[in-house]
Amino acid sequence: MSTPQQPAYLDNAASTALVAEARAAMESAWARPGNSSSLHGSGRRARRILEESRESIARDLGARPSEVIFTSGGTESDNLALKGIYAARRREDDRRRTVVVSAVEHHAILDPAQWLADEAGANLAVLPVDENGVVSVAALRELLASDADSVAVISVMWANNEVGTVQPIAEVARLGAEYGVPVHSDAIAAAGHLPIDFAESGLSALSIAGHKFGGPQGTGALLLQRDVACTPLLHGGGHERDIRSGTQDVPAAAGMAAALRAAVTHRDAHNAHVVALRDRLRDVLVAVGGVQVNGALGHPDAADALPGIVHVSFDGCEGDSLLMLLDAKGVECSTGSACTAGVAAASHVLLAMGLDMGTARGSLRFSLAHDNNNDDVTAVADVIGDVVDRARAAGLLSAGSRTGGRR
Amino acid sequence: MSTPQQPAYLDNAASTALVAEARAAMESAWARPGNSSSLHGSGRRARRILEESRESIARDLGARPSEVIFTSGGTESDNLALKGIYAARRREDDRRRTVVVSAVEHHAILDPAQWLADEAGANLAVLPVDENGVVSVAALRELLASDADSVAVISVMWANNEVGTVQPIAEVARLGAEYGVPVHSDAIAAAGHLPIDFAESGLSALSIAGHKFGGPQGTGALLLQRDVACTPLLHGGGHERDIRSGTQDVPAAAGMAAALRAAVTHRDAHNAHVVALRDRLRDVLVAVGGVQVNGALGHPDAADALPGIVHVSFDGCEGDSLLMLLDAKGVECSTGSACTAGVAAASHVLLAMGLDMGTARGSLRFSLAHDNNNDDVTAVADVIGDVVDRARAAGLLSAGSRTGGRR
Repeated sequence: MSTPQQPAYLDNAASTALVAEARAAMESAWARPGNSSSLHGSGRRARRILEESRESIARDLGARPSEVIFTSGGTESDNLALKGIYAARRREDDRRRTVVVSAVEHHAILDPAQWLADEAGANLAVLPVDENGVVSVAALRELLASDADSVAVISVMWANNEVGTVQPIAEVARLGAEYGVPVHSDAIAAAGHLPIDFAESGLSALSIAGHKFGGPQGTGALLLQRDVACTPLLHGGGHERDIRSGTQDVPAAAGMAAALRAAVTHRDAHNAHVVALRDRLRDVLVAVGGVQVNGALGHPDAADALPGIVHVSFDGCEGDSLLMLLDAKGVECSTGSACTAGVAAASHVLLAMGLDMGTARGSLRFSLAHDNNNDDVTAVADVIGDVVDRARAAGLLSAGSRTGGRR
Repeated sequence: MSTPQQPAYLDNAASTALVAEARAAMESAWARPGNSSSLHGSGRRARRILEESRESIARDLGARPSEVIFTSGGTESDNLALKGIYAARRREDDRRRTVVVSAVEHHAILDPAQWLADEAGANLAVLPVDENGVVSVAALRELLASDADSVAVISVMWANNEVGTVQPIAEVARLGAEYGVPVHSDAIAAAGHLPIDFAESGLSALSIAGHKFGGPQGTGALLLQRDVACTPLLHGGGHERDIRSGTQDVPAAAGMAAALRAAVTHRDAHNAHVVALRDRLRDVLVAVGGVQVNGALGHPDAADALPGIVHVSFDGCEGDSLLMLLDAKGVECSTGSACTAGVAAASHVLLAMGLDMGTARGSLRFSLAHDNNNDDVTAVADVIGDVVDRARAAGLLSAGSRTGGRR
């Protein structure tokens, strides 16, 4: 509902509101102090909350409790998986130096991959995507067929956080298994929104983050098969199977588990609601004219799409201008990943999909959650035409002074 | 107050209760969703809360806001400082391979130091401590005088988390400055309880953790001087000066800032209250007989002690037995660091102080906070004599079968 007090929040892919179930779980955990490593009653209570949270998350993702490693969020989970598995695999066989990622991974994968290449002797292999953002399984197959022995780890996201395209993760996992190479998937945009069965997926590792499905910020998990070696990033008390030291954040773990439980329980109903809003929002945006819908939502025969994301490019205007004009009218969205908001570059995801620079820069991501309603879409409908007109006028004015770099 | 429902919680060094101020700050932050990197109103609100929290923490620790790097807790702060500064210093000059730590550091320092030695070419230099746990400044001086060029980083804690001894951190920092070597201090046990002025300290880096002074678990900070290079552990969106990527946990940052504000505001009154309880508790424990008080509290002329810690060794019994017997009577304490609870080894801190194995194993740490009261000490007084008698009887029974290793 859009009011000056409460804008239409259509940036749930950046961070969701904390759901009531998560809040209640955290407040309940706060009722007594306790370090989950302490041996006394308060410590055992904290440990019980932690382990019940672990079991709940495992159940909701088709994993075993011992496969759930609590972390501080998606970025840590991704870094731990990529660097940790790389280090462990190279320690076993020094020829394993290739890190395979897709071109549309989040920076929490791309940046550690680049760091491994720059600082830790890795070779980086980047899988291309098609115009809808679907990762090329053929390229992965070719790479593995030619030199699987050199591959340390493969990381392909479950669904893209910007354009919402769902990846052929089953095929990627199958290829990894065929060649004995561990496959990690960043499922941060997918978890809670799409069915995930870790055991069935065949993946070695999978990342989630609480605040993308109604849980608290600052908490996440890495699902990690028991027989996949992973060098820790954080050394200390030996928490979390000695893979992630540090006093566990028990209230946050409980909050994340409760949020995931709620998301999974109500997923079908929520998704039906969200998809209906999304489709109406897409129609509202397309009606402006000079608009293209990016990713699988624009090409539903190409791949599945996340239920909550509408990603569009507007001819002849800057996404940042659109974002700020919409914000002034009480509509909150983003130009892409929040993590790179304000960064003066077009999205690497869109460029990898073959969009030209101008189109890429004229893009907006709207991301819906179950707590959005028709009023939020109406808020967009009420202002989008005027906003795009103004942004296009501004774009024409500045086009003469543009020199290729961003202003 | 000790009741079957609410035990006497005397393990605040493991984790404190969340103070009301922190809870209110977190609940207030929850009122709206928002990723602090998002550009719209909700994002700017989150960013404002984050930056106000940063400013508040900086003010309370004598630092500049830009020196505050939010992390997921003490272990991450320590790992980031030690590994990050080591990597950056070696990159500047490959001779810098020596990592200097004290023998009584927390495992969150000792374990990454050992990892650097095992995996990253570091030489580990361990500074000894005296019988009260005071780090030898003379040993550091000698080491630096002989070969300062080889030293990458020095890490000495502000105060010890097990025995409560406050370290001569000003002298350590001065020596580091004299030789141009960055000094990090793990101030996790000290922050909120002792005055800390980062600028005045001369330190390059300093770690804190929220849940040791009434803030939430899963959040901490590394104070890091602007001109001290530090390689990130987590790569991604470039958050936190590009030193610690990952969506910031805004509610937790607000909670930690509020808790620190409360702790600093009420420190003198809280410490007077806590010290009075501590001294009475010490007297209660000593009255049992066959008890030694460890660390600076037992030798107040040797060094300052943390206000809230009483660490004692009981002749002829096992700390674990004492802990479980006390727990059964509604008194919660620990045998040392919670992070190593249940680990079958005597504390490295006590062994470094020269305690023999038997004495080290017969130790308990009681740690008080401002929300303890006289009833909590009375709860100990009511049961400690009987508990020690029983533990000593059990110790005599098992002494015959003991072979040096722990049962």
